[in-house]
Amino acid sequence: MVRFTFPDAREWRYIIESLATIVDEANFVATPEGLTLRALDPGRIAMVDLYMPAGLFEEYSVEAETKIGVVLDDVNKVLKRAKSDDKLVFEVGGGRLTIILQGRAERRFRFPLLDIAGQELPTPKLNFTVAAKMLSDTFRDALKDASLVSESVRLKAEDETLYVSARSDKGEIESKFTIEAGSLLEIDVKEQAEASYGIDFLEKIVSKAYRVSDIMTLKFATNMPLEMTFDIAGGGTLKYLLAPRME
Amino acid sequence: MVRFTFPDAREWRYIIESLATIVDEANFVATPEGLTLRALDPGRIAMVDLYMPAGLFEEYSVEAETKIGVVLDDVNKVLKRAKSDDKLVFEVGGGRLTIILQGRAERRFRFPLLDIAGQELPTPKLNFTVAAKMLSDTFRDALKDASLVSESVRLKAEDETLYVSARSDKGEIESKFTIEAGSLLEIDVKEQAEASYGIDFLEKIVSKAYRVSDIMTLKFATNMPLEMTFDIAGGGTLKYLLAPRME
Amino acid sequence: MVRFTFPDAREWRYIIESLATIVDEANFVATPEGLTLRALDPGRIAMVDLYMPAGLFEEYSVEAETKIGVVLDDVNKVLKRAKSDDKLVFEVGGGRLTIILQGRAERRFRFPLLDIAGQELPTPKLNFTVAAKMLSDTFRDALKDASLVSESVRLKAEDETLYVSARSDKGEIESKFTIEAGSLLEIDVKEQAEASYGIDFLEKIVSKAYRVSDIMTLKFATNMPLEMTFDIAGGGTLKYLLAPRME
Repeated sequence: MVRFTFPDAREWRYIIESLATIVDEANFVATPEGLTLRALDPGRIAMVDLYMPAGLFEEYSVEAETKIGVVLDDVNKVLKRAKSDDKLVFEVGGGRLTIILQGRAERRFRFPLLDIAGQELPTPKLNFTVAAKMLSDTFRDALKDASLVSESVRLKAEDETLYVSARSDKGEIESKFTIEAGSLLEIDVKEQAEASYGIDFLEKIVSKAYRVSDIMTLKFATNMPLEMTFDIAGGGTLKYLLAPRME
Repeated sequence: MVRFTFPDAREWRYIIESLATIVDEANFVATPEGLTLRALDPGRIAMVDLYMPAGLFEEYSVEAETKIGVVLDDVNKVLKRAKSDDKLVFEVGGGRLTIILQGRAERRFRFPLLDIAGQELPTPKLNFTVAAKMLSDTFRDALKDASLVSESVRLKAEDETLYVSARSDKGEIESKFTIEAGSLLEIDVKEQAEASYGIDFLEKIVSKAYRVSDIMTLKFATNMPLEMTFDIAGGGTLKYLLAPRME
Repeated sequence: MVRFTFPDAREWRYIIESLATIVDEANFVATPEGLTLRALDPGRIAMVDLYMPAGLFEEYSVEAETKIGVVLDDVNKVLKRAKSDDKLVFEVGGGRLTIILQGRAERRFRFPLLDIAGQELPTPKLNFTVAAKMLSDTFRDALKDASLVSESVRLKAEDETLYVSARSDKGEIESKFTIEAGSLLEIDVKEQAEASYGIDFLEKIVSKAYRVSDIMTLKFATNMPLEMTFDIAGGGTLKYLLAPRME
């Protein structure tokens, strides 16, 4: 039987919520090495990649590769009910997933496992020319600013500066980020780059994923996808890939 | 003239809100001994019983039995407007109820009294085989958990343990409460018992009444009504009786 | 080019929100002496008068009278996005208004200026017989109380006491304010006065303007308009005039 235990039910809640911005139901894959999930949104615009090594768990017992198909919203409803000091246990066996919240009261939630058709998603090879590290919250703010006037946002990097801008007949908005002003933590511009992305998807992703990690890494190149990586304390990662918009 | 004064307008707000989960309009009965209200919900599933002895009031002047028929929502709207340091005065006379909020400003709200047909509700005699005392909040949480999968909840007590469970084709949920784990304060099981109740009513009642009292006492027996008692500081009680659901 | 700088973007947000209770779009008039705005609501019931002397600004560079026509809601959306330590810069030039939020990141928002037909509004001459100074919050509470039963509120002053009351077939409400009870800061009653005003407008105005100033001055006379003045720290004023309701 597969069983793994996590000390903080709340952190899992944020992870599940951030996955749920992309897909409604998905297969976690548990192997002796760790837990992964890779999923593509139904419109094939965004991909999410979760990696949680076995060492991240308090207890982790998985003997053979196991698929754990779940409705993310069902899991999320349970995790929303967790108290701040609740320990979280997942058990898989007999076609069912049991989620146990262990606090003063022990609460068991049991769901039938889903059989989700398993599409193997290859890892895309991409050459990014820009990498920038910043507070997730700073990027989230820039997206909200941009959404005042447009549904897409333009990322541009040159001279160690990142610009996030948007324009429409309603007006123009531009935010400027540099290491000097304290709004960037790191930036590496191999080659000047510019690309546009849909704000709707970006906002959904960042507004959830920033709770997993205060700091995010953005990578992009001219008219190429945007990769956003959120590090999970202890060595895991939550990574998103978002297709560019042609304008 | 009937007049009684209460030091904390907020506590009355919670009492009125908890009564309003059962009925829209009701007769308070003021006698020299104290204030009572007994009411049955229109569907005759739940009964509420409020008892506030005269000693609970800062000032209490009632010479003869007086019925005070009110629309609870009207009273509640006034009490919602109270500040934290407002003293509360009720005056009944000339067919009108005057509610006075005394803080820095003195605010008077006057309503015509209602003439509500007075059905005398007898006190039901019930033999409960289980009594459990717990934090109101703990029980409220168990109800919310259960409502994830079902509209009814099953209470079961055996071996000094209380189980709150629910099941449907969406999944199963079970919470376990014991004195050892710290989730029960007291339990007395004369005879093993099991009964189901509608979550909707329970949640409405507990989500309001827990503000009157942090601690509640549950009493039930197999397929019998559930009695929930919330003690009001100073010697009053707010008691609910809820009919079981047959399943 | 016109350019002025304000140290606290949030305070401007409250000013814009309070103007927006009266009009959707309006002309600010910048002169070397300061910034003013006078506007009448479309129903001609309420007038607002903003006066911000040049000395209120951190930097103020206006050479000739300039009209700055804006959609208040557009400006407000930008100011809502300001952080607590953001400095605010307005620049007018080339038919455009640029709002710059300067914090860690520098964010520029650019809008086309509006050409709003400029009606000159004269200052009405009014002889008020009552003047009362009170906490804006206290008056706001009295309006909320009154709105429980009616859509209009009656102000009455006599014997150094201010009464705010309302009545309908739903009930009656009266709040009483005096210096002794601590609910008035000052009152000057030259002649007893009574007048009614629409709660809807009053609530809209006070619920926004109280954020500009904790203290307000009310002036009125029998069946005459109500003047409400909110002082802006540093010497500015935000003043409203509201027509009475005949009852």
